Amino acid sequence: MKESNGHKPALPAIRIIEVGPRDGLQNEPGIVSTEAKVTFVDALSRTGVAEIEAGSFVLPRAIPQLADSEEVFRQIERRPGMVYSALVPNERGLERARAARVNKIALFTAASDTFNQRNINCTTRESIERFKPVVSGAKRDGMSVRGYISTVTHCPFEGPVPPSRVVEVMRQLLDLGVDEISLGETIGKAAPPEVRRLLDEIGPQIARTDLSLHFHDTYGMAIANVLIAWMEYGIQAFDTSAGGLGGCPYAPGASGNVATEDVIYALKASGASVDVDERLVVAAARQMEGVLNRPLSSRLSRVHQTEVTYERMP
Amino acid sequence: MKESNGHKPALPAIRIIEVGPRDGLQNEPGIVSTEAKVTFVDALSRTGVAEIEAGSFVLPRAIPQLADSEEVFRQIERRPGMVYSALVPNERGLERARAARVNKIALFTAASDTFNQRNINCTTRESIERFKPVVSGAKRDGMSVRGYISTVTHCPFEGPVPPSRVVEVMRQLLDLGVDEISLGETIGKAAPPEVRRLLDEIGPQIARTDLSLHFHDTYGMAIANVLIAWMEYGIQAFDTSAGGLGGCPYAPGASGNVATEDVIYALKASGASVDVDERLVVAAARQMEGVLNRPLSSRLSRVHQTEVTYERMP
Repeated sequence: MKESNGHKPALPAIRIIEVGPRDGLQNEPGIVSTEAKVTFVDALSRTGVAEIEAGSFVLPRAIPQLADSEEVFRQIERRPGMVYSALVPNERGLERARAARVNKIALFTAASDTFNQRNINCTTRESIERFKPVVSGAKRDGMSVRGYISTVTHCPFEGPVPPSRVVEVMRQLLDLGVDEISLGETIGKAAPPEVRRLLDEIGPQIARTDLSLHFHDTYGMAIANVLIAWMEYGIQAFDTSAGGLGGCPYAPGASGNVATEDVIYALKASGASVDVDERLVVAAARQMEGVLNRPLSSRLSRVHQTEVTYERMP
Repeated sequence: MKESNGHKPALPAIRIIEVGPRDGLQNEPGIVSTEAKVTFVDALSRTGVAEIEAGSFVLPRAIPQLADSEEVFRQIERRPGMVYSALVPNERGLERARAARVNKIALFTAASDTFNQRNINCTTRESIERFKPVVSGAKRDGMSVRGYISTVTHCPFEGPVPPSRVVEVMRQLLDLGVDEISLGETIGKAAPPEVRRLLDEIGPQIARTDLSLHFHDTYGMAIANVLIAWMEYGIQAFDTSAGGLGGCPYAPGASGNVATEDVIYALKASGASVDVDERLVVAAARQMEGVLNRPLSSRLSRVHQTEVTYERMP
């Protein structure tokens, strides 16, 4: 809110990892054209976000929506300094990511074995074994590696997940050489006490700058959790999705990923330094809203449409 | 979350003041039938909320949607112990409220003169003069009196509102004999630092049990603000609207009042004692969604519709 008065040390700027083009779009039932994806990524690259997860190199038939990731990476306008990342499940995916000139690969596992079994068809331990050659290959090729851990507080099948289990999986990933960890609160049920318990246990195990949090707004808790993580623990990196893209596409208004623009608003309004222009994010999200032909779930995108009506609000 | 273990003192239960039938519906452009309103109020009275603002006794032509408030109060099934309140602007409104057997009247002013001029056509000072005979009349008739102060952090016309101004207006209302104060963050822009500044100044001036907070979720900040107010200041009463009813009806998805069910979820998940069944609130909101024929904005109402799809969420 206030400018630094010279007495306080400047706060480190928040890093926003924009996941809309990958995590946001992957569940959309109608195939989005490569052109629309490229336009989306390019619009997002002008907003000030630190990274964009722009595609996925899983088997094309596993996620048909992202089967054109090679083409997306070929056509985007690479912005200097911007990190373009992609999901990579195995060595075949790594080869494709290398050919596509991806800056960072993202590996996906979960704190819950049952969730992993249903989602990637192996246990957490097996997923980490599978990552070994992928991590070493990526390092050899100069790509950095992000490790996603999902279901960090709740699993839809197993229920509450103990923080010690998350620490265990995180240690295994870090031991492999993964550069950074993103903790995903997959079903959106966590409240501040659970976020605190998790961060109390995670904190001593990883440099704060190597940690990102990925909240879902399914139960409306994401903004509160982001603010608690920043205000109380100094967490500086958040995975977010423009327009709140993601979640379940079959229920209009259902929310999955927390919206980039809502997180930026909340952090800026709370006094954080965030070098992202939320209006440009809203513009990018609205363009995608037109492509998908359904309203997205972010609060900010609604505000900007209706701000002329403020005067009449009682 | 956990049951009391006998060592901790029991936390006082949260009081939810449900404002959907009045504040939520009043901007709806299509007239909702009396029958649907009565059904809505009766459904809400079975959820565990402490109070229901069920109507308004302003001039019927000023808010045609609520012109049938007499009839609504006549037809609802009065639940023992439940407080049914109504908005009252003047002595004529008070007479109608008395005839309708309202338990509590609500007076409406704002911390911003410009907002009041545009909303109720007088300055804040003039509004309080006008309230004098209304408060004394209500007291004589055994009705308690709630005073709304809106624009407590931001005015859409004047910008930021200093907490000292809110304290001043609140003191004037308390001096009139108003029993309780509801502070309304009308445009939904406030973040936790502003909520803290306000509560730091308000705190010494009023008993905590006489204070309610009324947040709007327009910018997605409401849940974070509710939790800060409860966790850090022990605020126990919140005005909320089932389904997030309210705000601007011309933009589908636009959010005004924070949704009752989302506040209940957030507080329960954070460890508060809340004797309201959020599933019953969702059911009541969904019935109204059918009447209005447009999706409401609460997060929880979307979750319950889609919970079967959890298994497929990555």
